[in-house]
Amino acid sequence: MALIVQKYGGSSVADATSIKRVAKRVTEAKKAGHDVVVVVSAMGDTTDELIDLAQQVTPLPPQREMDILLTAGERISMSLLAMAINNLGVEAKSFTGQQAGVITDEVYGKARIIDVSPSRIRDTVARGEVAIVAGFQGVNPSTNDVTTLGRGGSDTTAVALAASLKADVCEIYTDVDGVFTADPRIVPNARKLDRISYDEMLEMAASGAKVLMLRCVEYARRYEVPVHVRSSFSTHTGTLVTNEPDPDLDSEKDTTMEQPIIAGVAHDRSEAKITVVGVPDVPGKAARIFEVVAAAGVNLDMIVQNVSAAATGLTDISFTLPATDGATATQALTAHQPDIGFQSLQYDDAIGKLSLIGAGMKSHPGVSARLFAALSEAGINIEMISTSEIRISVVTRADSLDDAVRAVHTAFELDSEQDEAVVYGGTGR
Amino acid sequence: MALIVQKYGGSSVADATSIKRVAKRVTEAKKAGHDVVVVVSAMGDTTDELIDLAQQVTPLPPQREMDILLTAGERISMSLLAMAINNLGVEAKSFTGQQAGVITDEVYGKARIIDVSPSRIRDTVARGEVAIVAGFQGVNPSTNDVTTLGRGGSDTTAVALAASLKADVCEIYTDVDGVFTADPRIVPNARKLDRISYDEMLEMAASGAKVLMLRCVEYARRYEVPVHVRSSFSTHTGTLVTNEPDPDLDSEKDTTMEQPIIAGVAHDRSEAKITVVGVPDVPGKAARIFEVVAAAGVNLDMIVQNVSAAATGLTDISFTLPATDGATATQALTAHQPDIGFQSLQYDDAIGKLSLIGAGMKSHPGVSARLFAALSEAGINIEMISTSEIRISVVTRADSLDDAVRAVHTAFELDSEQDEAVVYGGTGR
Repeated sequence: MALIVQKYGGSSVADATSIKRVAKRVTEAKKAGHDVVVVVSAMGDTTDELIDLAQQVTPLPPQREMDILLTAGERISMSLLAMAINNLGVEAKSFTGQQAGVITDEVYGKARIIDVSPSRIRDTVARGEVAIVAGFQGVNPSTNDVTTLGRGGSDTTAVALAASLKADVCEIYTDVDGVFTADPRIVPNARKLDRISYDEMLEMAASGAKVLMLRCVEYARRYEVPVHVRSSFSTHTGTLVTNEPDPDLDSEKDTTMEQPIIAGVAHDRSEAKITVVGVPDVPGKAARIFEVVAAAGVNLDMIVQNVSAAATGLTDISFTLPATDGATATQALTAHQPDIGFQSLQYDDAIGKLSLIGAGMKSHPGVSARLFAALSEAGINIEMISTSEIRISVVTRADSLDDAVRAVHTAFELDSEQDEAVVYGGTGR
Repeated sequence: MALIVQKYGGSSVADATSIKRVAKRVTEAKKAGHDVVVVVSAMGDTTDELIDLAQQVTPLPPQREMDILLTAGERISMSLLAMAINNLGVEAKSFTGQQAGVITDEVYGKARIIDVSPSRIRDTVARGEVAIVAGFQGVNPSTNDVTTLGRGGSDTTAVALAASLKADVCEIYTDVDGVFTADPRIVPNARKLDRISYDEMLEMAASGAKVLMLRCVEYARRYEVPVHVRSSFSTHTGTLVTNEPDPDLDSEKDTTMEQPIIAGVAHDRSEAKITVVGVPDVPGKAARIFEVVAAAGVNLDMIVQNVSAAATGLTDISFTLPATDGATATQALTAHQPDIGFQSLQYDDAIGKLSLIGAGMKSHPGVSARLFAALSEAGINIEMISTSEIRISVVTRADSLDDAVRAVHTAFELDSEQDEAVVYGGTGR
């Protein structure tokens, strides 16, 4: 008998029929002898509809009130799911983030969890009942006001609860069958990964893979919570995010007995590039640029400084950033143009980023060379490069990105023999 | 400067436009120098939509979960209203029933308020901000779970808060201009009352006038909270429910200097009549009938026992009850037919009840005679009669009820000179 935390996203509880299907799934786990805690998001488009209502009322809603408004969404889904489970003969009770002991800081709209004290959840499970917990929300203990955790909040709630309850596994139910070696919409013969390490998953999430949000993976990694990403529309085994070695490795059908070098190819179309042209090449100027951007609350990703042209004493500095922060960063830099002393700004949002991720590349030289060769053969120009221990990222033109992903996926022998992508999206959808 | 509690119902906050109109009204009161606490219901049909969702999921939702579900409705309206008020430059914060200190018993779905400790509301008002409070909800302190107050719950929240805060007035905003001498849909020249006593309002509410719920009036009467019933679609003065004498009485344009005998004529179509035929006329049989009905949880209204026919030793007993309880009462009585020993049951839901209400009738003999004469002249048959100190009620055929109300309204000189009913429903609706 295990303690399982299951998390269902908005698309899994979009209407009464979906909620009843999730209820059936929960009761099956319960009847198989497990203790079950369920974290649930708001139904379908509820959150967007509530945001829309707020915008009809005011252009600048106070964030405290916005959080009160948005948390109505999980209140609805969690109580309906509890009703549906009760209707199948299994006792279930729903709890708000506050009732479940999800304590956060006071940053409305994107609060961070600072503690989880799930005594009511433990009591509920101990009574043999299923506990349903609202994802995405917590409480600011200094005011007793509700807070929301921002994007990916429900996944984070699930992992945080699993960590606090010392659950055996945190199952994240989604609309895909797991983590793939690439996005199957771009690479039709991408393979589903059976396992992936926390570090690799972290790099995948940071590089644009949308199946799990970065902060949720960070939380799972820190507390070593095994996360099982799987489809709510099928019963297929999904992808296990864990550092534990695979016990079935010897029995794998795969002929290679080695760990794979590469976990997958992620891509990201959400970034833009700013080039600061004509920066005086004297100490402190580059630092000043990044201070100004940081002070505007913008996180940079990749940075490239050109070799200074000796004749002019000027250099160019390029960096990438979320395209949604483009206006903010541009305004901040323009305001400081006099004291930084650059000549002009170029803004380019027609870029794409490809990232090759794999713990195995640490011990395998030549991964970069193979990557660049594959892109060169496909006729794709590389504009920027950055690397970590287990990741190489390159920036290309946005309209070359899909070709780049396919070329790299093939070059690293990630393509499956069969066309597994039919599984993607689930059979029962 | 006064402390005003304003309550807006679902039709007053049905959409973003309505919410902005309410926000404007709230800020006007605030800018006139008053402290303002606002109690708000769920938007328009939200509650019905949530009930419908629950019924799609299960035929028998657990009441605890139902209350969690339904309270999402006020969460949405209260935060949107707070946003809209902030947008007009007045600081406002919204609070759930629990945060506002509305403590109830543990009867989910129809909890009763046992205490109100509105310290956060007091603090908010003391800071010069507007406090928005979710109507219809409270907290069960033994479990910290949310409860709902049942029908009329938001009005009751408002009056209870006004009592606890010692507010100068509790304004109940609705879609009519106040309390009328009769329903203007039936009597086009019904008059709006400027004032009505708690006792009269209590009888009006108990007799079918829908403008205020009985329990809200009971609460107001117990704590002597002045209640101002008025339209959210106009700025007309509405009806003040109070026991204070009218300070303007001498300056009234009305030629009569006397207190009016009659406050109004209420009507009710929601009752049915059960006649228990052939009850043995021996002591204890009638009591047994009412015991059985009471044990089934049904509240009786009027009761009539016919004179026993000496030859048979049998009598008939008729009573009225809410038509929604008809099946329950009929089943309970049928189950006990052997031990009570009656011959048969007759069920009749084609009845109507007319009630004439007025504190003045205590000191004015002849009110009943005038009532019966008016009905007789209009050719309307009276089937049952009951009276209290300040009320006379009669049961008629349902299809005679409108004629009866008009005849009585005219006979007691309640008709206005002008056709005031154009005001009914508000001008700005």
